[in-house]
Amino acid sequence: MQGNEMNIKLNCDMGESFGIWKMGQDKEIMPFIDMANLACGYHASDAVTMNRSVALAKEYNVTIGAHPSYQDLVGFGRRSMLCSLEEIKSIVLYQLGALSAFCKSQGTTISYVKPHGALYNDMMKDENIYKAILNAISSFDKNIKLMVLSTPNNEAAKHTALLYGINLIFEVFADRNYNDDGTLVSRAQPNAVIKDELEVAQRIMNLKERGYLESVNKEKLFIEVNTICVHGDNQNALEFIKLLRKAL
Amino acid sequence: MQGNEMNIKLNCDMGESFGIWKMGQDKEIMPFIDMANLACGYHASDAVTMNRSVALAKEYNVTIGAHPSYQDLVGFGRRSMLCSLEEIKSIVLYQLGALSAFCKSQGTTISYVKPHGALYNDMMKDENIYKAILNAISSFDKNIKLMVLSTPNNEAAKHTALLYGINLIFEVFADRNYNDDGTLVSRAQPNAVIKDELEVAQRIMNLKERGYLESVNKEKLFIEVNTICVHGDNQNALEFIKLLRKAL
Amino acid sequence: MQGNEMNIKLNCDMGESFGIWKMGQDKEIMPFIDMANLACGYHASDAVTMNRSVALAKEYNVTIGAHPSYQDLVGFGRRSMLCSLEEIKSIVLYQLGALSAFCKSQGTTISYVKPHGALYNDMMKDENIYKAILNAISSFDKNIKLMVLSTPNNEAAKHTALLYGINLIFEVFADRNYNDDGTLVSRAQPNAVIKDELEVAQRIMNLKERGYLESVNKEKLFIEVNTICVHGDNQNALEFIKLLRKAL
Amino acid sequence: MQGNEMNIKLNCDMGESFGIWKMGQDKEIMPFIDMANLACGYHASDAVTMNRSVALAKEYNVTIGAHPSYQDLVGFGRRSMLCSLEEIKSIVLYQLGALSAFCKSQGTTISYVKPHGALYNDMMKDENIYKAILNAISSFDKNIKLMVLSTPNNEAAKHTALLYGINLIFEVFADRNYNDDGTLVSRAQPNAVIKDELEVAQRIMNLKERGYLESVNKEKLFIEVNTICVHGDNQNALEFIKLLRKAL
Repeated sequence: MQGNEMNIKLNCDMGESFGIWKMGQDKEIMPFIDMANLACGYHASDAVTMNRSVALAKEYNVTIGAHPSYQDLVGFGRRSMLCSLEEIKSIVLYQLGALSAFCKSQGTTISYVKPHGALYNDMMKDENIYKAILNAISSFDKNIKLMVLSTPNNEAAKHTALLYGINLIFEVFADRNYNDDGTLVSRAQPNAVIKDELEVAQRIMNLKERGYLESVNKEKLFIEVNTICVHGDNQNALEFIKLLRKAL
Repeated sequence: MQGNEMNIKLNCDMGESFGIWKMGQDKEIMPFIDMANLACGYHASDAVTMNRSVALAKEYNVTIGAHPSYQDLVGFGRRSMLCSLEEIKSIVLYQLGALSAFCKSQGTTISYVKPHGALYNDMMKDENIYKAILNAISSFDKNIKLMVLSTPNNEAAKHTALLYGINLIFEVFADRNYNDDGTLVSRAQPNAVIKDELEVAQRIMNLKERGYLESVNKEKLFIEVNTICVHGDNQNALEFIKLLRKAL
Repeated sequence: MQGNEMNIKLNCDMGESFGIWKMGQDKEIMPFIDMANLACGYHASDAVTMNRSVALAKEYNVTIGAHPSYQDLVGFGRRSMLCSLEEIKSIVLYQLGALSAFCKSQGTTISYVKPHGALYNDMMKDENIYKAILNAISSFDKNIKLMVLSTPNNEAAKHTALLYGINLIFEVFADRNYNDDGTLVSRAQPNAVIKDELEVAQRIMNLKERGYLESVNKEKLFIEVNTICVHGDNQNALEFIKLLRKAL
Repeated sequence: MQGNEMNIKLNCDMGESFGIWKMGQDKEIMPFIDMANLACGYHASDAVTMNRSVALAKEYNVTIGAHPSYQDLVGFGRRSMLCSLEEIKSIVLYQLGALSAFCKSQGTTISYVKPHGALYNDMMKDENIYKAILNAISSFDKNIKLMVLSTPNNEAAKHTALLYGINLIFEVFADRNYNDDGTLVSRAQPNAVIKDELEVAQRIMNLKERGYLESVNKEKLFIEVNTICVHGDNQNALEFIKLLRKAL
C-alpha cells in the first residue's frame, strides 16, 4: 500500500480534570480529534467529569477509549508502581467498567483501551504486563481494541494480542525522534522531542502520503500507523491540532 | 397472601476488605446467604478484592448486588456528605460500572443495587437522592433492581421507581424494633436494636409464616418483605446466619 | 478608636494546586497579600506543593496560616461531612502538623488556622465543632490564632476561645452584603455577592477609615475586622488585589 | 565490648489500622515493646488512629517513631514507586509533621524515623533516597534518629548520616537468615525466613550475650544491633514477643 491514506486518526488524552481542577481545553479540542482517551479516576478524572467527558465525546462523534492508569492521583499516573499481575488485570477491569457505565448510560460504547503514562511504558517494556492488560480487555469485551506504540516488534505484539482475541491500534508519536531501528530516541537525549510544530506537521504528512518517518539519521522508517497522539494541555495545542487536522 | 413463603432472601454486605485489611468472613458466610451486597471501592474494597468477591459469589450461586457509597474510605461511607444530584448519579454509575466489569469478565451480572451506609439513609430520607439513584440505575440497565427499606410508604416508593422502569426489593431489619406505624425505632432509643438472637430468629419465622412483625407495642405490622439483612462482621455471625438459614 | 487603621490585612487561600493540577496564581499574588492560608492536603495541595508554598510565602514575608479541611479532595472540601468531634480534632491536628513540618524545615512557623470551605461554615454554625477546632489548636500550640468570620457574636466567640487560651482573628468578606444585624446576606439571595470591584474597594476603604460597613439597608455596621479575604483564582484577581493593596 | 547488653530494644510496627479496619493487637502488644513505629496515614492509619496510637504508646512509656511510607494505602506501602527526590523529602516531612502534631498535643515527641515497606527497601538500595530521607529529618529536627538495617556497610551509612547531623539506629531481623558477608539471604531463597520461634529467640539471646549472629554457614557475624524488629500482626505474636521480652 502506498502510504497510510484514510487511516491516520488523531488521538488525544481528554477528561483529565479532577474535581475543581481543570486540565486541557476539552471543549475546544474535541471537535478536531478522532479518538478521545478518557481518564477513569485513577490518575485523573472523577465520576462527574467522566459523565461529562463521555457526553462531550458523543456530541462530536469522537471515538471513546478508556485511559486506565496506576492508582496514583497525586503523581498523575506517571510514577511506575511495582504491581502484581492480578493487580494490573484488576485495575484495568475496574477502570474499564467505570467508564463503560457512563458510555452505556449515554447509549455509546468504549472502542479501545490506551493505558496511561507509566502503565503504558511498563506495558511496552514488560511482556507480562502487556498480557495482563490483554487478559483484562479480553475477558471484558473482545470488540475493544488495545492501543500500543508502533515499534519494530509489531508482528510479535499482534501475535500475542490475537491469542487473547484482541486487535491492536498502532500509535506513532510524530513529535518524537526515532532511531534507525524504529525505536524512540530516549528522552535522556537532547533531540528526543521535536519542538518545531511545522516539522511535526511535515512528518505527519509524509507518514500519511509516503508511509514513512525519517529517523534521526535520515533513514526512511516504514512504520505501521493507525493513529497519532496529540496533546491538549499546552497553550497553542488547539492551533496545532487544527493544523494537523488540515494536513490529514 | 398468607405469609411470605418462598420469598424471603438473606442479604449480607460482602467484599468489604480493603487492600491488606480484612473484614468479615466472606468465605465462611457466602455459602449461607442468597444475596451479596458487594462494595465497589468507595467505602471499602479495591479492584483485586472486587475481582475475588465476584468469583466467590459466583462459586456459591449467590445473587450479586452493587453496594455503592459516598466516596469516603476512612469513614467507611457512614458519614453523610452533602453531594449534588449530579454527583449522586455519577458516583452510583461509576461504582455500578466498576463492579459490572468484574461480573462481565466472569460471565455473571449485577442483579440489584443496595446503597451503603449514609447513602442508604439519605436515599430513604430525601426523594431527590432516591430519584438520582433510580436515574443512574435506569440509564445503565433497567433489569437491575433497587433494594430499599420496607416502610409504610412502599406504594409511593414503587410508583416513583416505576417511572424510571425500576423494580424494588424490600428489605426488613429483623434485629430492629419497629414503631406501630411501621417506621424503625430511632437508634437514639435504648430498644432500637434487638440483641437476643433467638428473638430475632423468631421474628423472622413469624414474618415468613404469618406475614407480620410485632411492633414495640405488640401490634401486628403486615410489612412487605423480600429480604432480610444479616451482618457478617461480628463474632458469631456465622452461627446466627446458619440458624436463620434453617428458620427460612 | 477611629476606624481600623494599620490593622486590616489581606488574607488569601494559597497553595491549592494538587499534583499536576495548578490552581491560582500564587507566584504573582503572594507579593501583594499579608496572610497566606495554605492548604494541607485534605481538600487541596500535596507534600511537594506544601513545601514550595511555604518557601514562596517565606520569600515574601507573608504570614503563614494552616487551611485545614474535611478529607475530600474530589469535592475540594466544600461538601459538609458528618464527622465526630474526635474526628474534627484529629483532622485539624493532622493537617496542622503536616504544614508545620514544612515551616519548621524552612525556619518559619504557622501563625494561625483558618478552616476551609465546609469546615469553616460548620465551625461558624456549630459550637461543638468550633470547640473541637479550638481544642486541637490549643493542644498543639497556644500561640497559633484562629481566624473566624466577624459576626455580631464576636464577644461570645472570644470568650469561648480564651477558655482554650486561643486568640481570634476576625475576617470580613468585603464582597458580600451584610444584613442590618451584621450577618451575611444568604447566598440564596440575588444580592449576596457584590460584583462591582470598585464598590468592594470603596467598602474596604470605608471600613478602614471609618470603621463600618454599610448594610444592604444602608445602616452603618461597626464591625470588628482584622483581615479581609481576597480570592486568587479568578482572572483579574491580581489586578483587584493590587487595587486593594493600594486602598489599604 | 562483650555482647550488646542493655542495648537491644524491641521495635514493632503499630497503629496500622485504617478507618474501620483493625490491624494487629496494639493494646495487647504495646506493654511488651520498647519502640513503636507509628504509621502516618500514607500506607496505613488515619488522623483518629494516630491520635489514639500516640496515647497508647505514651501510656506504656514506649518510645515513638514515625513510620512514613510511599503514598499507597491500597498497596500498604509495599509497592515501590518511582518518586523524585523532592517527593521523597516532602512525603517524609509531611508524615513526620502529622505524627508530631499528635505527639506535641499529648506532651510527647518523636524519637526516630523508620521508613516503611518499599520505602525502607529503596532507602537501603539507593544512596540518593537515603540522603533525601536524612535531609528531611535533618531539616525538621536533628534530635530525631533514623532506623536502618544493620549491614556490613554501617560505617559508610553512619558517615553519610553525620553529614546531615543525624544519628542512626541499627536494626537486625532475628527471624531472617544472613549470608556470611552480613547481607540478608534473599527472600527468593527457601531459607530466607526462620520460622522456628525458639530458634529465633536463641539467636537473639546469642546476639545479646555474645554479640554475634550465626550466618547460614554457621559463621559468626559480629553485627551492630540496637534493636530487633518484631511483628504484631500474626496469631501468636503476643506470646512470642513476651518470650523475647524475657530473653532480653
